Amino acid sequence: MTSAAAPTPFLPETDTLPEEAAPTTRCRILETAEAAFRDIGYQKTTVADIARTLRMSPANVYRFFDSKKAIHEAVIQRLMDETERRVTVAAQSGNASAADRLGAVIRVLHQTCAERCDANPRMQEMVAAAVAESWDVCAQHIERTAAIFETLVRSGVAAGEFAVDDPALAAACLHTAVLRYCHPTLVSQYPNVGIPPLEAMIMFLIRGLRRIP
Amino acid sequence: MTSAAAPTPFLPETDTLPEEAAPTTRCRILETAEAAFRDIGYQKTTVADIARTLRMSPANVYRFFDSKKAIHEAVIQRLMDETERRVTVAAQSGNASAADRLGAVIRVLHQTCAERCDANPRMQEMVAAAVAESWDVCAQHIERTAAIFETLVRSGVAAGEFAVDDPALAAACLHTAVLRYCHPTLVSQYPNVGIPPLEAMIMFLIRGLRRIP
Repeated sequence: MTSAAAPTPFLPETDTLPEEAAPTTRCRILETAEAAFRDIGYQKTTVADIARTLRMSPANVYRFFDSKKAIHEAVIQRLMDETERRVTVAAQSGNASAADRLGAVIRVLHQTCAERCDANPRMQEMVAAAVAESWDVCAQHIERTAAIFETLVRSGVAAGEFAVDDPALAAACLHTAVLRYCHPTLVSQYPNVGIPPLEAMIMFLIRGLRRIP
Repeated sequence: MTSAAAPTPFLPETDTLPEEAAPTTRCRILETAEAAFRDIGYQKTTVADIARTLRMSPANVYRFFDSKKAIHEAVIQRLMDETERRVTVAAQSGNASAADRLGAVIRVLHQTCAERCDANPRMQEMVAAAVAESWDVCAQHIERTAAIFETLVRSGVAAGEFAVDDPALAAACLHTAVLRYCHPTLVSQYPNVGIPPLEAMIMFLIRGLRRIP
């Protein structure tokens, strides 16, 4: 909201912060929130807690995030961005075949999930809630990951490596078939008994894509 | 425990019930428990509630079930038995190919789960808890289902329909790959957006088993 009052030398003309400070403050809020979510869990952390740690007023936190939920979403967004960065590296791995790149992408999705479950069980609870409640940030992450699967299946078809009639559908099947290894709740809460090793699953699924000679 | 006292015409020699009555009472307890679980949920139902409905003492319920957990397990056992009965019928469907029988088994697992989610969300919560907490009855059900998958893959290999090096491993991959369609929590709580139709998934997975001509 722009102030109608005459500018003074002591106050900025509007209530937005100077250009550099705003992203920095936003970042500090997210870092503080993430640390609190790791320590005591996202459900117990209040905006007041975050503001107190940062020695600012809750009102100032609300200038950057409309609601507590907006902070949750932004923290999840940072995690998903990091996963996507790693997935993109795996998808582009040098001269590897489409099969090898698909395997690398699935491995990264599993490792990222498993590492987070071990390192930050409280954070993983938040990711699980975000997935279960289909927060926009998660739905978009799942869509972008699905698009990477599809690009790789298409490139395998173009290279004559795979033979599938409907690459988008085959990619969706592949993505859905590895859920057991990449879903925060399934990875963190279920014993691994009875499920095949991830490498065996990758080989099994890639076989279904191959061109029959 | 056998009583050492002399038998009288009015009391049975031991504290077990007459042959017919014991299974009947056990059955009535389970039916009453299941109805209560459907109505108010398994967590809110007490042994006292079940006893009251049956006009018997809680002590009498405990003669048949050691604990409330034992009642939970027995109710789940009945559901799993019903699922396994349907799966067995699908697995033995006439002269169908191994591929068709595998498809039929996966369809039954999905339908049973989806029907229960729709009809009895409270009961499905209990199944979800049983799966998540790996109650013995669930672990055994999953093992028996896995064994059916393996039998069908082996019969497809024997018939020259499938070509896989390790039928047990291929069956485990198949079973794990359809989790999204057969897991109570995933089926009941997650929107279907972005997942392929079950028939497409079945075709995709069976293709991976086929003998390459």
